[in-house]
Amino acid sequence: MQNKTYEESIKLHKKYGGKLEVVTKVPLKNKKDLSLAYTPGVAGVCLEIAKNPKLAREYTIKKNTVAIVSDGSAILGLGNLGALAAIPVMEGKAAIFKDFGGVDAFPICIHTQNTEEIIELVKQIAPVFGGINLEDISAPRCFEIEERLRKELDIPVMHDDQWGAATVGLAALVNALKLAKLKKENVKVVIAGVGAAGVATGRLLHAYGITNTIFCDSKGIINKKRIGLTKEKKELLKGSTLKERTGTLADALIDVDVFIGLSQPKTLTGEMIKSMNSKPIIFTLANPTPEIMPEEALESGAFIVATGRSDYPNQINNSLMFPNAFKAMLDYKIPQFENKIFVTIAIALANIIKKPTKENIIPSMFDQKARKAVYKAVASLAKK
Amino acid sequence: MQNKTYEESIKLHKKYGGKLEVVTKVPLKNKKDLSLAYTPGVAGVCLEIAKNPKLAREYTIKKNTVAIVSDGSAILGLGNLGALAAIPVMEGKAAIFKDFGGVDAFPICIHTQNTEEIIELVKQIAPVFGGINLEDISAPRCFEIEERLRKELDIPVMHDDQWGAATVGLAALVNALKLAKLKKENVKVVIAGVGAAGVATGRLLHAYGITNTIFCDSKGIINKKRIGLTKEKKELLKGSTLKERTGTLADALIDVDVFIGLSQPKTLTGEMIKSMNSKPIIFTLANPTPEIMPEEALESGAFIVATGRSDYPNQINNSLMFPNAFKAMLDYKIPQFENKIFVTIAIALANIIKKPTKENIIPSMFDQKARKAVYKAVASLAKK
Repeated sequence: MQNKTYEESIKLHKKYGGKLEVVTKVPLKNKKDLSLAYTPGVAGVCLEIAKNPKLAREYTIKKNTVAIVSDGSAILGLGNLGALAAIPVMEGKAAIFKDFGGVDAFPICIHTQNTEEIIELVKQIAPVFGGINLEDISAPRCFEIEERLRKELDIPVMHDDQWGAATVGLAALVNALKLAKLKKENVKVVIAGVGAAGVATGRLLHAYGITNTIFCDSKGIINKKRIGLTKEKKELLKGSTLKERTGTLADALIDVDVFIGLSQPKTLTGEMIKSMNSKPIIFTLANPTPEIMPEEALESGAFIVATGRSDYPNQINNSLMFPNAFKAMLDYKIPQFENKIFVTIAIALANIIKKPTKENIIPSMFDQKARKAVYKAVASLAKK
Repeated sequence: MQNKTYEESIKLHKKYGGKLEVVTKVPLKNKKDLSLAYTPGVAGVCLEIAKNPKLAREYTIKKNTVAIVSDGSAILGLGNLGALAAIPVMEGKAAIFKDFGGVDAFPICIHTQNTEEIIELVKQIAPVFGGINLEDISAPRCFEIEERLRKELDIPVMHDDQWGAATVGLAALVNALKLAKLKKENVKVVIAGVGAAGVATGRLLHAYGITNTIFCDSKGIINKKRIGLTKEKKELLKGSTLKERTGTLADALIDVDVFIGLSQPKTLTGEMIKSMNSKPIIFTLANPTPEIMPEEALESGAFIVATGRSDYPNQINNSLMFPNAFKAMLDYKIPQFENKIFVTIAIALANIIKKPTKENIIPSMFDQKARKAVYKAVASLAKK
């Protein structure tokens, strides 16, 4: 199955030779057209921008264009394949930006994996862009790169591997909690995997008000006694009310309500689900092979299951979020992303589904209403 | 007149808010489409490229995409306005790339004017691109940046301010010499202005076989006695047979056949033209205000006049050259630009005009045959 999809995809890429095209929006048929779109007329536009740099966001592609920046260090689940091999993914991302959100996006796949060099490079190429989407950059470098760029640039910066998954995941969780009749103040959540998506998910849960959280990495439960914790892990622990638990992932899951897996294939067992509270909510998001297959999770008593896959119900897909989040950021010239924006988007996405069911807790990424809801959620914050 | 064109151009830019759009070439309507253009199918394409990096030029936009890189240090004739103010020009350039040559081009306007930083940055962003068009980067930095990038990258690099003007200028000169019945071995040429375009013009004239050349900069004739000459000026002097002449531009023009001005407005007088040989060929290319107005040049005895302007006959416009030169470089995967390619293009462009007249020595940039001729000229070299 996978090989067949791979083959079909290679065939498609061979046929089109790249999935994007840069086309001209203005007429360019005669000398008059050229004199306005190019010299001599364009000099007038240049001089205006030189006088008032803010006009670049009115008169140029900066108005509606996002850079998709990747160093190829964490391509999908494939690992560090480098800049050239990252291009097909970033093109696909740009295609989704355009077709789902009307944002012009261009792939910038860079031949360095040095944190300082990446930060410097993004700052140097920033003039053309109205926003920066970081993509497939491995943890923990992704945290520092995003944090620094948010401080040092005057345009919004978002690492989608962090916030895309976290925001759509929170949206699905909001509906799952409604169905299970659990309150955010009381619900206990285990997050397995503390990479890019795991850290962001923890941060958003805390911002939303879910603070009974236990984080597990490959060494087991993260707790105060562990030495050598990263800055991010320390911060997550600080925001949690469940600081005392120790042990393995299996220990973590006893008597909790929710499992959110952003880790490795086949790390969750039916036994572990059976040790959870009465209505286990299982988000098994490792892709393409999840922490546990949905069938097995349901057999073991899962109340609701969500995955990252399109061939099961409840797909947690970041394409629901990033195109229209960026579109609204650009249109309303919002200076920077922050947790509040993501939480607002998540609630709006959850509310799209008037009557959630176990197999329908999150809208499809083809749902036009969902796209509009994301846009409106961000716009509503701008208006405040 | 200029203010009116400026106003109209600003209006156009305000209306469209950027002249380019990044659009999707592949279908993206349903889950199946997404599974091929994006995950999970795209992983197959990434893995193939990781195994064989050359496939990036088959499966991705690298196949047909050029970066237009500018630091905004020499925007049109306006000077150093910086990266933001450069965007409208680079967008216009990208539009011409697409509409005249079918090349996808994207503006990279960078926030550094340090030579080493620019070289490093272009190398780091190179993976996505099949070619690099340097634009509006001031001399002498432009020479080192181009030279180094040609050596250090495996894709073609061209500074259009140098080679665009030089190639189209040589094409026009070839026809002008036919009309004046002058042979390239005997003709004497003065080049006024030894910036980006002047240096490249000198290099191409020498490569074509016109070596009776005199170069003038703001200090007058460049000769062996001058101290502190740049590397480029020394090289041009070395390639010339007329090393002995000294003095001012007026001294340089006595008894020569051709004046090529790539310098400053109003630096050539009718008196100087009168001191030239019997059929003075005057290329007065400073833009928008030329070294001498065509009317005055003709009154003073000019045999043929060419300008950079669209409102006089014989416009020397680099748009004739760069879109299809790059298109053929990409299609035939020619590793690097070299002088031979530009000379071949110039001869092909000249030959498009079967019967040159004094007012028709160079094709219009809207001439489809001329575009094809540029493409074929480059392709013919690839086939050899």
